[in-house]
Amino acid sequence: MRMVDIIERKRMGTPNTQEEIKFVIDGYVNGDIPDYQVSAWLMAIYFQGMDDDEAFFLTKAMLYSGDIIDLSQIDGVKVDKHSTGGVGDKTTLVLGPLVASVGAKLAKLSGRGLGHTGGTLDKMESVPGLRIDIEEEKFIKQVNEINMAVAGQTKKIVPADKLLYALRDVTGTVPSIPLIASSIMSKKLASGADVICLDVKIGDGAFMKTLEDAEELSRIMVSIGKSFGKKVTAFITNMDQPLGFAVGNRLEVKEVVDTLNGKGPDDLVELCEDIASYMIYYARKADSIEAAKALAHDQLNNGKAYEKFLEFTKAQGANDVDYNNFIQVKDVDSYLATETGYIKEIKALNIGLASMKLGGGRETKEDDIDPNVGIVLTKKVGDYVKKGDVLLDIYRNTELTKEIVSLLDDAYIIVSEEIKTPKTIQKIIN
Amino acid sequence: MRMVDIIERKRMGTPNTQEEIKFVIDGYVNGDIPDYQVSAWLMAIYFQGMDDDEAFFLTKAMLYSGDIIDLSQIDGVKVDKHSTGGVGDKTTLVLGPLVASVGAKLAKLSGRGLGHTGGTLDKMESVPGLRIDIEEEKFIKQVNEINMAVAGQTKKIVPADKLLYALRDVTGTVPSIPLIASSIMSKKLASGADVICLDVKIGDGAFMKTLEDAEELSRIMVSIGKSFGKKVTAFITNMDQPLGFAVGNRLEVKEVVDTLNGKGPDDLVELCEDIASYMIYYARKADSIEAAKALAHDQLNNGKAYEKFLEFTKAQGANDVDYNNFIQVKDVDSYLATETGYIKEIKALNIGLASMKLGGGRETKEDDIDPNVGIVLTKKVGDYVKKGDVLLDIYRNTELTKEIVSLLDDAYIIVSEEIKTPKTIQKIIN
Repeated sequence: MRMVDIIERKRMGTPNTQEEIKFVIDGYVNGDIPDYQVSAWLMAIYFQGMDDDEAFFLTKAMLYSGDIIDLSQIDGVKVDKHSTGGVGDKTTLVLGPLVASVGAKLAKLSGRGLGHTGGTLDKMESVPGLRIDIEEEKFIKQVNEINMAVAGQTKKIVPADKLLYALRDVTGTVPSIPLIASSIMSKKLASGADVICLDVKIGDGAFMKTLEDAEELSRIMVSIGKSFGKKVTAFITNMDQPLGFAVGNRLEVKEVVDTLNGKGPDDLVELCEDIASYMIYYARKADSIEAAKALAHDQLNNGKAYEKFLEFTKAQGANDVDYNNFIQVKDVDSYLATETGYIKEIKALNIGLASMKLGGGRETKEDDIDPNVGIVLTKKVGDYVKKGDVLLDIYRNTELTKEIVSLLDDAYIIVSEEIKTPKTIQKIIN
Repeated sequence: MRMVDIIERKRMGTPNTQEEIKFVIDGYVNGDIPDYQVSAWLMAIYFQGMDDDEAFFLTKAMLYSGDIIDLSQIDGVKVDKHSTGGVGDKTTLVLGPLVASVGAKLAKLSGRGLGHTGGTLDKMESVPGLRIDIEEEKFIKQVNEINMAVAGQTKKIVPADKLLYALRDVTGTVPSIPLIASSIMSKKLASGADVICLDVKIGDGAFMKTLEDAEELSRIMVSIGKSFGKKVTAFITNMDQPLGFAVGNRLEVKEVVDTLNGKGPDDLVELCEDIASYMIYYARKADSIEAAKALAHDQLNNGKAYEKFLEFTKAQGANDVDYNNFIQVKDVDSYLATETGYIKEIKALNIGLASMKLGGGRETKEDDIDPNVGIVLTKKVGDYVKKGDVLLDIYRNTELTKEIVSLLDDAYIIVSEEIKTPKTIQKIIN
């Protein structure tokens, strides 16, 4: 088998076989196939696409390039979720305790955030004492005991994805839907869950710009999951504004605590209850999606989900945290509306970048994060505002730069005609 | 400027600017831009194409990546020709003396053959005493004195093309028409001629498979040439059979000698007279293409072209060669027709490969060539043959292998209905 023939067949529009795709991935990981052939192949895939079989073969080849987490010692149905990256997305920290509180098992290995979207690990580490480095044995024991654990990835899962992603990043081959699908799915499958819920964001600051692309990505990921015998559901969700009100690590944790006490923002609550309903139903803790959703709603309002959150955070080292007093900033500035009308859009990308520039996110892997800073919206899309009303509060420990103000100035689209409150979930595909 | 942005723009279908293309070529030649980015860019070009401006910018960037031959000390109009590679293509050795005999200047730097098509240098070196390594000063002096010199490339012309071609060869990005056009044109332009005739072969064994592709390649090359102020004419010619009768170095030289004495095969004579007419006209040695063609015809039949050939070969070291007795082979086998009918096709690729397997061509750069061996057709497309008639003679110094016989068996398509003698030149584009 010659790599150049494999590239040429893909270039001509002939699907690559399982053997060919395995040959490429294995050869690339062990150094037999050079970067320059793989990048040409990736660009040919960008133009010619991949059919469902090829996407499955690619996911499989990547999955078996490294370790696969063995969750077989956990009793019951293991659920997991993944988001393609949203601003203000604290869903995992709400969903986890929520589904664990009714008996589903969430054994989640999470990544760090980079750029304008925050990572779950960073939000967790903002809580005093909360540890994310848990040994495998303890991790499994914790899930068996309290139904839930969230830790950083330590094993060398899917090394092929790391290599391929680094190459795609510098060769203009990132935005290929089958490549994105197999990258996400290989990592999720390596984490060993039975039920996988995928939150596919659409909008300006998201990976997928259109509903059409998001549907195609969702469809391929569900197809790949089915080929591995997993229950996969994709939720296509709006990123025309940040999720909830809070952006910034501790600010978001505070919002998580509020949400688990029945006082969450409408869009975050809607998203969490909907995703939870599928997780709970597929974990066989309810007889229908509707019953599961009602159960999820109850757990957010009867204190059970919050109880599980305290149990989970305590198991991972956080004791008696005073969530009402753990945000320490020098200043809070209000940012005011410069016009009167209905908010049509709050550009999530701008809000995310502004929070990052305040010190709340990383521009490079080496950057330190200030867990206290960030932004709290006071108005959301569909709200009516008058000139001079507060649009958001800026929590900061450094000077407010022109760059940040300019990002905020460009974030809002305010119009005179009435705007409906948007639905967060656009479509569910499974 | 970042390479990844240049790749992305090309991928999206935005033409690359002159600055971007120069950045890529300069960066690749000096090692600043890695193979894996260039190969992704080349694959994006395969799919998105290049407009005429981009092809010009690419040719220019490649041209200036190395030395350009300075022919300014040669008086008069310098003419040159290039063929995309044909089996039995000995055109240069006929055309050169022919146009030089009427005063056009041919200062040709030629390459070696590889694979199933032979190179002019190999054919020249098959003549006892004939040298192809001429120093620049002597080369220019010779052209000024006798109007003609043919030598091997010594200067480092177009290093970018060598690098790019090697990369395209292993990344499935060879068959891109603008890349082929700029590769050919950068080398021709670096050789310094004013008038360039291009022989673009079409057919099964040729680079271009269809008339449409050949037209597009021709059109782009002519456009590039015009941008550099050169007179460029492309001749799209048939490769449904080898050119002339002879394939193999000395066998072809013998056919050149015959052609220069007015006894050449019809297709070779037609092609040489037609290309010569454009060279002679643009070199201002005739008042019209028609007059130039009549002049070319005369020179092939009045001994003047052959006189120039003897002058040229003598100047480069070959004296008193007996062309009637310089082919030394152990055996000549006749290959017979197995059916009766009209010859519809003689697959040039098969004949070329058979000659190579006899030892007449190179499979790898390191292979030695036996100048004596090869194939001489006795029938051409359109001829009527009876079962048992001789189709060709095999000149050999080694055993006749099954592989060679099998190549010949597959070379002929013989049909019952009458077949017209095909026109060699399909179209002229300038």
